[in-house]
Amino acid sequence: MAKQIDLNCDMGESFGAYTIGSDEKLLEFVTSANIACGAHAGDPTVMDRTVRLAKEHHVGVGAHPGFPDIAGFGRRMIDFSPDEIYRMVVHQIGGLQAFCTVHGFQMQHVKPHGAMYNLAAQNRDAADAITRAVYDVDSSLILFGLAGSELLAAGREAGLRVASEVFADRTYQADGSLIPRGRADAMISNVDAAVLQVERMVNEGVVCAATGEMVDIEADTICVHGDGEHAVTFVEKLRAMLERAGIVVRGLG
Amino acid sequence: MAKQIDLNCDMGESFGAYTIGSDEKLLEFVTSANIACGAHAGDPTVMDRTVRLAKEHHVGVGAHPGFPDIAGFGRRMIDFSPDEIYRMVVHQIGGLQAFCTVHGFQMQHVKPHGAMYNLAAQNRDAADAITRAVYDVDSSLILFGLAGSELLAAGREAGLRVASEVFADRTYQADGSLIPRGRADAMISNVDAAVLQVERMVNEGVVCAATGEMVDIEADTICVHGDGEHAVTFVEKLRAMLERAGIVVRGLG
Amino acid sequence: MAKQIDLNCDMGESFGAYTIGSDEKLLEFVTSANIACGAHAGDPTVMDRTVRLAKEHHVGVGAHPGFPDIAGFGRRMIDFSPDEIYRMVVHQIGGLQAFCTVHGFQMQHVKPHGAMYNLAAQNRDAADAITRAVYDVDSSLILFGLAGSELLAAGREAGLRVASEVFADRTYQADGSLIPRGRADAMISNVDAAVLQVERMVNEGVVCAATGEMVDIEADTICVHGDGEHAVTFVEKLRAMLERAGIVVRGLG
Amino acid sequence: MAKQIDLNCDMGESFGAYTIGSDEKLLEFVTSANIACGAHAGDPTVMDRTVRLAKEHHVGVGAHPGFPDIAGFGRRMIDFSPDEIYRMVVHQIGGLQAFCTVHGFQMQHVKPHGAMYNLAAQNRDAADAITRAVYDVDSSLILFGLAGSELLAAGREAGLRVASEVFADRTYQADGSLIPRGRADAMISNVDAAVLQVERMVNEGVVCAATGEMVDIEADTICVHGDGEHAVTFVEKLRAMLERAGIVVRGLG
Repeated sequence: MAKQIDLNCDMGESFGAYTIGSDEKLLEFVTSANIACGAHAGDPTVMDRTVRLAKEHHVGVGAHPGFPDIAGFGRRMIDFSPDEIYRMVVHQIGGLQAFCTVHGFQMQHVKPHGAMYNLAAQNRDAADAITRAVYDVDSSLILFGLAGSELLAAGREAGLRVASEVFADRTYQADGSLIPRGRADAMISNVDAAVLQVERMVNEGVVCAATGEMVDIEADTICVHGDGEHAVTFVEKLRAMLERAGIVVRGLG
Repeated sequence: MAKQIDLNCDMGESFGAYTIGSDEKLLEFVTSANIACGAHAGDPTVMDRTVRLAKEHHVGVGAHPGFPDIAGFGRRMIDFSPDEIYRMVVHQIGGLQAFCTVHGFQMQHVKPHGAMYNLAAQNRDAADAITRAVYDVDSSLILFGLAGSELLAAGREAGLRVASEVFADRTYQADGSLIPRGRADAMISNVDAAVLQVERMVNEGVVCAATGEMVDIEADTICVHGDGEHAVTFVEKLRAMLERAGIVVRGLG
Repeated sequence: MAKQIDLNCDMGESFGAYTIGSDEKLLEFVTSANIACGAHAGDPTVMDRTVRLAKEHHVGVGAHPGFPDIAGFGRRMIDFSPDEIYRMVVHQIGGLQAFCTVHGFQMQHVKPHGAMYNLAAQNRDAADAITRAVYDVDSSLILFGLAGSELLAAGREAGLRVASEVFADRTYQADGSLIPRGRADAMISNVDAAVLQVERMVNEGVVCAATGEMVDIEADTICVHGDGEHAVTFVEKLRAMLERAGIVVRGLG
Repeated sequence: MAKQIDLNCDMGESFGAYTIGSDEKLLEFVTSANIACGAHAGDPTVMDRTVRLAKEHHVGVGAHPGFPDIAGFGRRMIDFSPDEIYRMVVHQIGGLQAFCTVHGFQMQHVKPHGAMYNLAAQNRDAADAITRAVYDVDSSLILFGLAGSELLAAGREAGLRVASEVFADRTYQADGSLIPRGRADAMISNVDAAVLQVERMVNEGVVCAATGEMVDIEADTICVHGDGEHAVTFVEKLRAMLERAGIVVRGLG
């Protein structure tokens, strides 16, 4: 049976007069859209438009909850308690669900954003809070999290369907974690190298760490980036080359 | 058959470290709670707590959407288009619905707040936008609006169940509209006078305007105010006196 | 003596991860920079950077206060009282002044933004509030306002130095007011036509209305737009052609 | 010569329709007011009013900059870089300075708020950033910081005048630091005990730690709390008892 993979991308991160990303073009190539819920980015107009566009492109819609911090784009660590995180995730999923309802579309998944994503990868209390929020609002939602993270462990334990997320254009450490963005060797800019990394993840279940070790990794969905000048070109090429390599790019729905 | 009336009150309008209202005490006396949705007031922690408390008190939960303007408490007129209003109402209902879901409680109604409420009373485009948002998200929700308002007309026309709202402690003009808050004679502070006004509204379907005319008015629900020093005492007395007068205070659910 | 004109542009309107405008390039061509003060756009990091860049380019720095509404970019009318407008202008000028202080640069002017600018053009109470705020904080600041506006009248009456602002790329009505942006004929996209309009304003003190009438207009400063794809090219060309036409482009300081 | 002490209190922390604190009453008893600058609390209307009231009561005005986080009241740790802290402090001092200017009053001091205060007590980079911001905006401002903190060390090294802050109603650890608020023994509710603690601090330069040790402490100013039901009564009593004990309560200006 042919191997398959989901391609997901953060979307709907524009805000008022401020535009970020090329959502409409990217929707031609990805299979899952993580839509900002107005806390770290997005607003009701952007949410409405992005859900509609995703539906038109038959792309799975996910809530992309983040810390309530537009000024920091949800990337800054803020000291929230697990209970506060639970409530903000409930709230943000609900806001996006309403747009799914008015567009007659079913929400597919939830993927935390930025600092919340990073926290949930390592901190079990935060991971449990997010998991519980997803479960309590709709236990049929798929929880997206970093491969090998606490979030996936929490989601599995709670009985949620989870999707293990890997990166085509990020480098890995020997323990399976990502090389932090600040470092010079954090990113893979060459598409061929990115495709090769994904092929191995999908076909062999391994990734080659920057230090040379082969590390086991589970790959259900690849995160591609929607900002940056060459984002659309990169995703288009990545998808084409994956398909040429016999990997089926298909949503999780 | 005994006449009956609903008592509704705005709630959940605290925000972070800022506390407004005596929600828990008021919930002993009212039958419908209009809960702020984080746009003009409220935050996920407050929303969660207020839904939980309303459920515990068997009080009907309503979304209380307002203009996104915490600094102005949703009382300032802001120039939004009907489409923007549609989207902000969809978004805010959705956010509160998620808390109803996690508490296993059914949302009962929607009542716009402050400047949005006033706009929807007179402006049919805004009234239609709000009506459409409520209908699209959940057509079984009851729409609360000022007696005689455009909002009620829009809601009825769209096929929503509506509740005509009257005020126990506000004075009326000969055309059935409220005397603006700025005026010295806008408020009724005497509870006996307020009860008398409500009795006539419920039993006879009329209100006596400040200028003496008897005006037809439909009364499904009375708005009581949750802020102010004597709010709880006023509501407690009002309810007791209404019941003594043979009017059943009962929710709309 | 050669005629002269100031070129001003709104700047520093980026916000957190959101970028708007090509500030650094535009600073090569304009002589006055209206810097957002964090209310309708901008944040401390952007303010700091923009003041520094303006100083490096020897461009006059102005505060560009707006309604506190990042989500609406200060373009939405919000119902503020004159006293509230006074205080928000005082506050915003002060915030930018502090960055001028740390960069050892003197603030030159104040120009209201968006909805506040439009309101102050027509409403004398708002115009007086802004004027009073500028005067009370620093009576040596130059007040920028629409040619023929209430704001300029208020500023002159209060004894402030004022600068009458005209538009190179906007069309005018017979009463000297701008054709509203919504209309199809509101903008002049042809640079030659824009230069011709400015030449007449500067040399002859008139503008040709869309309906053909010659209208008297005072032109101290031209507003050029920093957003839009061709903004930099337009400004560069406009400046070169004005200078070729013998008009000196010079700041007001 | 009689010993003397300053009494400072956080003020101006109301926001829009939300009221916190009894500023006007407290101004009768304190000698320094730390006024919120609109980032963690306060807004232009509140800032204006609080500066005016402080001037009327001849109380020294200080900027009380905090993390930009109204929803969290500036109490949540947020991961800001020292450069970002520098800019937010510059910005916030500037905003308040403008209100001092329009009221013809001189700003006296700067005291960071909440999470920023705590960070600056222990983290030298943050302390240096705040110090540099104060110095660059106005090197004659007095910097308030926790007794024994990194902030005071940074301020002294930079040549700023500093004021060492102690607490009448908080308990201390053997190393001179405060017992964290979460702990049951963090607060002193008895006024006599609080006065005794202050007397020793002022007269003998020591504080008795909860574990019994006598710890050296420098006391230039006492922080009293403006919120809480008994805040005004506590401050009134504290001041009266200090004066009875021969300690002069006097501002630093």
